[in-house]
Amino acid sequence: MALTLYHNDMSVCAQKVRMALAEKRLAYEGRHLNLRRGDQTDPAYLKLNPNGVVPTLVDDGFVVIESIVINEYLDDAFPEPPLKPKDAAGRARMRWFTKHVDAGIFPATGVVSMSIAFHHQYTPEAVEEIARTRPPAWRRRFEQLQKGVDNPAFPDAIARLDKMLGDMEKALAEGGPWLAGATYSLADVAYAPYVTRLDQLKFGGMLDRRPRVADWYERIRARPAYQEALAKWFNEKYLPLMDEKGRAAWPRVKAMLAAA
Amino acid sequence: MALTLYHNDMSVCAQKVRMALAEKRLAYEGRHLNLRRGDQTDPAYLKLNPNGVVPTLVDDGFVVIESIVINEYLDDAFPEPPLKPKDAAGRARMRWFTKHVDAGIFPATGVVSMSIAFHHQYTPEAVEEIARTRPPAWRRRFEQLQKGVDNPAFPDAIARLDKMLGDMEKALAEGGPWLAGATYSLADVAYAPYVTRLDQLKFGGMLDRRPRVADWYERIRARPAYQEALAKWFNEKYLPLMDEKGRAAWPRVKAMLAAA
Repeated sequence: MALTLYHNDMSVCAQKVRMALAEKRLAYEGRHLNLRRGDQTDPAYLKLNPNGVVPTLVDDGFVVIESIVINEYLDDAFPEPPLKPKDAAGRARMRWFTKHVDAGIFPATGVVSMSIAFHHQYTPEAVEEIARTRPPAWRRRFEQLQKGVDNPAFPDAIARLDKMLGDMEKALAEGGPWLAGATYSLADVAYAPYVTRLDQLKFGGMLDRRPRVADWYERIRARPAYQEALAKWFNEKYLPLMDEKGRAAWPRVKAMLAAA
Repeated sequence: MALTLYHNDMSVCAQKVRMALAEKRLAYEGRHLNLRRGDQTDPAYLKLNPNGVVPTLVDDGFVVIESIVINEYLDDAFPEPPLKPKDAAGRARMRWFTKHVDAGIFPATGVVSMSIAFHHQYTPEAVEEIARTRPPAWRRRFEQLQKGVDNPAFPDAIARLDKMLGDMEKALAEGGPWLAGATYSLADVAYAPYVTRLDQLKFGGMLDRRPRVADWYERIRARPAYQEALAKWFNEKYLPLMDEKGRAAWPRVKAMLAAA
């Protein structure tokens, strides 16, 4: 067995895959990419992952991209301990959750994280440098991100994450203790990074109306795999930035959610 | 066994699920929704499918929504004949394909189909009637669709479908005879409706550079399940509309793709 993971410390998609690897206690060779330096657009990496994103898993030469595909692959290739329910209905509940990350939760998290905190990392010089090699739309989008909560894309994005928490609460109320029911699964693994991100942005108030999600989050954080795959990799430069900027934004975010 | 499928004749997502059902020779009770009449927003239906879209599968009271989840469910609940490869690598290849429908191929197909052909179905009176109950963005979007190939969203949408064909050709060249390799799978089932739609829009010229996809499409169409799940349901009002409007648009679409 020779697993190699191309990843990044704070990438939600990489967190998701590291968590599945950790649950299965699989050893891997990690290749950490510096995304701000642009490692993901290196021609050698683009051969593995033409989208220029992390993560990429290579298993003895077999390349797997897309985190939802990678996690299903890990559970197929390394079945113990299983990360999906045994029954078809439980698997459908799991896949309803995992399916909603790509087209909804992931892009919404990008808009929220960048608008609130991450755009502050870029100096004007860095923005100019990046803009030189991107289409004009890149600069327009970056200017919107710099508006923070006033980014026109922000209300829909935060509403999408609020819906995510509502969907989780509903599933936990109807079943539980895990998102797909009795079995801890790839659904829980997939959502751990996203609830973590809201917590790191100090938007924990979004859980006030969701006691079951709050309890789920505590149980997730208590897992050794969470410590190994997420907590160990938290970037010490990003945490205070998310904390400070998120706390400052929270009153307006709270009002926005209350009005929605 | 009591399966009920809420569906629509020409919905690509419903076609995909009917095809999986047909491959497994599963009987079901069909409830055909008239989407232009708005059956999908009936309160009773919204209880089953809060998104107000088709399809919805109900299996002895267990409700499954999202076509990608439904098809995996069918293969879990009714394993024979199997619609996924036995090995983890084959399943990863399959899921790479099925994963790209929701966030890319499906919305691109909506833009292309509506811009070229389907918007012609709406009389000005019908547009006014629908617009009364929708947010203002609905009318703006509809006005863009009426521009056909000049819809600003059209070039990206048709490029996405061209990429789909390129991805299929590459996979068939590297492996085959099916998208995930030796085993006919949910990947082939998922892509059958989308290649069919391009064919019905008379954009078959997009296959000229993809002989393996053209061959795959012939093999797909020869399957009894295709006849049962797709061909039998083709709407006789839509086919001539797609044919006429698609033929008229093709020279510009061809030039657009050549220039891209």
